[in-house]
Amino acid sequence: MQAEIITIGNEILIGQIVDTNSAWMAALLNENGITVHQITSVSDNSVHIIETLKDASGRSDIIFLTGGLGPTRDDITKKTLCEYFGVGLRFDAEVMTEVEKRLNQFNRHLTELNRNQAEIPENCIPLQNKNGTAPGMWFDCEGKVYVSLPGVPYEMKGLMNDEVIPRIKQKFRLPVIINKTILTIGIAESALAEKISDWEDSLANTGIALAYLPSPGMVRLRLSGCGENRSSLEENIENKVRELQMLAGKYIYGYNNDTLERLVGEILIKSGKTMSTAESCTGGYIAHQLTSEPGSSNYFKGSIVSYAIETKINILGVNPDIIEKHGVVSAETVEAMAQGVRRKMNTDCSIATSGIAGPGGGTDENPVGTVWIAVAAGQRLISRKFQFPYNRKRNIHVTAITALNMLRKELIEHTDEG
Amino acid sequence: MQAEIITIGNEILIGQIVDTNSAWMAALLNENGITVHQITSVSDNSVHIIETLKDASGRSDIIFLTGGLGPTRDDITKKTLCEYFGVGLRFDAEVMTEVEKRLNQFNRHLTELNRNQAEIPENCIPLQNKNGTAPGMWFDCEGKVYVSLPGVPYEMKGLMNDEVIPRIKQKFRLPVIINKTILTIGIAESALAEKISDWEDSLANTGIALAYLPSPGMVRLRLSGCGENRSSLEENIENKVRELQMLAGKYIYGYNNDTLERLVGEILIKSGKTMSTAESCTGGYIAHQLTSEPGSSNYFKGSIVSYAIETKINILGVNPDIIEKHGVVSAETVEAMAQGVRRKMNTDCSIATSGIAGPGGGTDENPVGTVWIAVAAGQRLISRKFQFPYNRKRNIHVTAITALNMLRKELIEHTDEG
Repeated sequence: MQAEIITIGNEILIGQIVDTNSAWMAALLNENGITVHQITSVSDNSVHIIETLKDASGRSDIIFLTGGLGPTRDDITKKTLCEYFGVGLRFDAEVMTEVEKRLNQFNRHLTELNRNQAEIPENCIPLQNKNGTAPGMWFDCEGKVYVSLPGVPYEMKGLMNDEVIPRIKQKFRLPVIINKTILTIGIAESALAEKISDWEDSLANTGIALAYLPSPGMVRLRLSGCGENRSSLEENIENKVRELQMLAGKYIYGYNNDTLERLVGEILIKSGKTMSTAESCTGGYIAHQLTSEPGSSNYFKGSIVSYAIETKINILGVNPDIIEKHGVVSAETVEAMAQGVRRKMNTDCSIATSGIAGPGGGTDENPVGTVWIAVAAGQRLISRKFQFPYNRKRNIHVTAITALNMLRKELIEHTDEG
Repeated sequence: MQAEIITIGNEILIGQIVDTNSAWMAALLNENGITVHQITSVSDNSVHIIETLKDASGRSDIIFLTGGLGPTRDDITKKTLCEYFGVGLRFDAEVMTEVEKRLNQFNRHLTELNRNQAEIPENCIPLQNKNGTAPGMWFDCEGKVYVSLPGVPYEMKGLMNDEVIPRIKQKFRLPVIINKTILTIGIAESALAEKISDWEDSLANTGIALAYLPSPGMVRLRLSGCGENRSSLEENIENKVRELQMLAGKYIYGYNNDTLERLVGEILIKSGKTMSTAESCTGGYIAHQLTSEPGSSNYFKGSIVSYAIETKINILGVNPDIIEKHGVVSAETVEAMAQGVRRKMNTDCSIATSGIAGPGGGTDENPVGTVWIAVAAGQRLISRKFQFPYNRKRNIHVTAITALNMLRKELIEHTDEG
């Protein structure tokens, strides 16, 4: 089963936005046993779109289009699809009801432009868009499937998960594909590759493929198996995962879509404990990560983002002599911050960060990327120094995941001392 | 002058990496008056690459290829280009010297694979790659130009800036292209389109095109003009922007790559003022946005993320009677939070948020998406209630940009009262 993705929009061709939709869709399709043959970005021009549709349908079974479905006049996908299929538009009352429902939900008035959104090509099956007013559209034509989706990532993703993938699974018999991703932190890609090289060789002829997916501070290992029999494929993959745990268990923090903030939350809920953060160089990013999880108010009491020295002293209660003697970026200061926030917020454990995220602020002693992280949990108070090599944004991100992992390990390894 | 970009690599088609090269190249080409007609991502397969090259050269004047130039065996671009042009490889001594120089610089040994990098198609002009061992390649063939570049972003960027753009400028006479993006907040795409519909009609036959680029809580309007004379084109676009300011000025917060956090920072620096935040439902996200800007420590003193009621009382100093009487999500509480953090952090102004981000926690009185935002600046303390329709992540994001925009407007409109 082969697919192509066509993204429509001048904003991609003038480089104003990066097309992230295609990669997301390609990953989802691959997980479901569908190969993506080509991704093509074209302008808001009907001649160009029609040419591209013809070429794609000559090569592939399913053609996805994203973009060009909004209510304003520069969105021409719908008219172009009518031209391509040689059909007219029809007014769909059910779509209209959905558009009105959505507008109500967003507290917006119905405009003439919105009314046009209920007009769809005669030959299309509308797909309900729970996150916006433009419906998705499904076409069956001469043995090929065409799926047209809005370009807003959040709307496209909802439609792919809720409507498109289930319909594709119903229509086509897809091979069984099982993906399992093993999440590691604290080891570089090349060091990990050396450590598990024999294990990697053992995957040959098992029908299981390995991919390294590095991102700053982490390496994800994705095992993908393709076959006919789900249960034997699952068993083979789980055996390989167990072998990997023996080799690199100390670097593995989770699987598939696990996140450190969710894992930390689960441990805290289970033990009835609470936490807080004192953030200097991470500037609230750890608190943001933690509170991105629904239900985090059950264990996260809050954060003090102490960007100014006076905030560290006046609100966190760090002794000014400590800062004077050891500096802001030091074990002593970051430990005092962790103790301070834990006391002020009355929590069982805490994280604190202090460092130089860059690009400015580096010194000979503490160059850009120098970060101290402290974790207070139970009777234990630990701190570690890191030297990260990234830009500001990445240094902040890697500091946050490293800090969350330090707390996770403390909670797991010293659970009885709390 | 029309160009196409072809990106080569399976990792794009399985969704393992997002293709950021194309957007960067497209932006650079547009700035130089070259229109990008199409971007195509294809697999590491010579038949597929050759088909795509043929199609592209039938449509466009310059064809860019990125990817597939590394030393390892899955990189096949060079062989495929030889096949496409019907030429062989030749050993280039100058390229060899460059490869050796680069390896020395990176403290690496010369391998057989590196030696192969000095073999280039007979008809190509090698382009010096200062950041890596794979040379760029320039081909002139039947009136078309082909440029092949490595896929590593910083190598590709160096080659584009240092070698490719200067050669293109020498070879072709390019038109002037000017893009200007107007950034709006607080008005929906369809409502904005109605408001400016006559203005939009007035763009016909001016050589200036308009595009709507919506994202949650914001709509960007992009004007693109193409012509021969830079100053008259600039003047025409600026006139249109001035007209738009008359129609929708209250929704416009900036232009091009402006961000709210940077604009707020610039106003604060200019007036020598400082700020802080007290965040409940945004959970540190506003602090994170502010501290993503280098130099934010000049005006941002910190944040108190008060996720627990006791944190609001004990650290922000909110009177428990206020919470008891009006609830946590109320004008009175959020105003007390803004006052509290401003006093505790000793700043000139502050932002506070309290609301129900979802998915849980909604009540009849305060359903999911209910958010109160307060801004304290100078003598003024204002608060507003919002009802956002999104999921947790988006509700947090839209709350943050709305809050930053409220502060920005206060600082601009009531600057003398501070």
